[in-house]
Amino acid sequence: MSASLHFMPGHEPAATRLAAELAIPVQPVTVHRFPDGESLVRVAPSGDTALLYCPLDHPDDRLVQVLLAASALRDRGAERVVLIAPYLGYMRQDIAFSPGEAVSQRVIGGLIAQGFDGLVTVDPHLHRTACLGDVVPGIAALNVSAAPTISAAIAAGMTPDTILVGPDAESRPWVEAVAAQLGLETVIAEKRRLGDRQVEIVLPDPAWLAARPVLLVDDLISSGGTLIECARVLAACGARLRGAFATHCLASADDLAALARSGVGPLAATDSVPGPAATIPIAPALAAAIRTAGMA
Amino acid sequence: MSASLHFMPGHEPAATRLAAELAIPVQPVTVHRFPDGESLVRVAPSGDTALLYCPLDHPDDRLVQVLLAASALRDRGAERVVLIAPYLGYMRQDIAFSPGEAVSQRVIGGLIAQGFDGLVTVDPHLHRTACLGDVVPGIAALNVSAAPTISAAIAAGMTPDTILVGPDAESRPWVEAVAAQLGLETVIAEKRRLGDRQVEIVLPDPAWLAARPVLLVDDLISSGGTLIECARVLAACGARLRGAFATHCLASADDLAALARSGVGPLAATDSVPGPAATIPIAPALAAAIRTAGMA
Repeated sequence: MSASLHFMPGHEPAATRLAAELAIPVQPVTVHRFPDGESLVRVAPSGDTALLYCPLDHPDDRLVQVLLAASALRDRGAERVVLIAPYLGYMRQDIAFSPGEAVSQRVIGGLIAQGFDGLVTVDPHLHRTACLGDVVPGIAALNVSAAPTISAAIAAGMTPDTILVGPDAESRPWVEAVAAQLGLETVIAEKRRLGDRQVEIVLPDPAWLAARPVLLVDDLISSGGTLIECARVLAACGARLRGAFATHCLASADDLAALARSGVGPLAATDSVPGPAATIPIAPALAAAIRTAGMA
Repeated sequence: MSASLHFMPGHEPAATRLAAELAIPVQPVTVHRFPDGESLVRVAPSGDTALLYCPLDHPDDRLVQVLLAASALRDRGAERVVLIAPYLGYMRQDIAFSPGEAVSQRVIGGLIAQGFDGLVTVDPHLHRTACLGDVVPGIAALNVSAAPTISAAIAAGMTPDTILVGPDAESRPWVEAVAAQLGLETVIAEKRRLGDRQVEIVLPDPAWLAARPVLLVDDLISSGGTLIECARVLAACGARLRGAFATHCLASADDLAALARSGVGPLAATDSVPGPAATIPIAPALAAAIRTAGMA
């Protein structure tokens, strides 16, 4: 079985790293936008297995384009097309929070399951859905943890008395996995969402954090509002905030500027989504998981 | 069986006209964009049949949003969800014109067929595919002709010696249908495409057009390059160009400004896609076809 990696526009560096780890050829997918807003998607010849690389942040138009690319790869002879989406959007909307809301996770998962034979992603933001396989029924689903990758990045610069702070209950298993690998203590805050960009953060035992070096750790930096509020309450209790680590950083340039002003300190995320904070290559973890699963 | 009409953002006027013609309730679909680019789609309670109104120009992100809305309408109890897309994009890419190109018509048709129980559109730009039903396998497909609507609009202002000019061979059946209803003569030009916005137009018998009042008629004004080149060759042979009529006008504000400078004259299109030229309501034709087909 031969395999090839194909990447959507804007993802050459991360895709090239992954292809090198897997020792398979890598080719760009080109997307030409016509004046009427339609996309002409074109792919290079494929191996028996085509890996299609495209993080699915800002997902609406990208979803259509990866489905077009998947179809073109099959027309090129691919027997199996696997979507490598290191970041997978739409996982948070897993129920209708008020009547009439689309359950986006189910719809988007269904589209992916229709178009692909497999899905590989990193730390999907699943809440009530226990398992990635339930999101994409009937196809192979590979959920790669970035915890070892993040742990290794933290280990390079930390002191042994560092405390890892997770901003909300949902971050607990993830922060504890990172901390366990490093032998560090953790604090998990409580978060209440007040709006798209506004949250309230409560630390369980603020006095205990005074004068301690602290790193914020989360799976996902979205607009950065949570981290900014964390930085505020950590500063208020006298903690020495040394930076933040995340699997995914979706923050815009404006968001990153606000984060830089907030005293969070240096941000580092994996390159699951390209951007200034995306300094930790996820390719080795992806490649190891893909090889173990026999996907390439 | 009860029915309700639901419209995507930006389409209240045309959707309200259609709902009035069908005498069924009309409700907006709301789309909230999160900072991370995901869409939260929310629908009102539905009848047994939900008609979802959304022209599919600039289709990539709209396709995902209508699929989300269709799912939400089913969750609201709709037993049948029908997409009313007066303009249906992606119909032109019906083969791979060079190796590796996605056959977009097949992929997009498949997505619509997965998400909906029926599709209603107006004058889809089909070339090699004979029938709209082949584009959306397994669901009800209704292809509404705008020719009678356009004929009625032309009749209001024409003189009996007016010649209808179609810009290319593909426009022939459509231009002849309009002309037959009005008892007018037609001329069909030959078009050669040189790029996204550049074409060459050849008139079969230029001398015959000298001093004759002429109306350009086409199914689709995309960037307007074809009409501008038609205006140039018609002016060169001395024809008196009086304007242009089309089913669909996708032209941007810049395109429309260029068209206004070109001497094409007043443009009129149906409101299948909203815009300054979209002055001819298509709702009566849509409603008649939907009623006849028993879709609402």
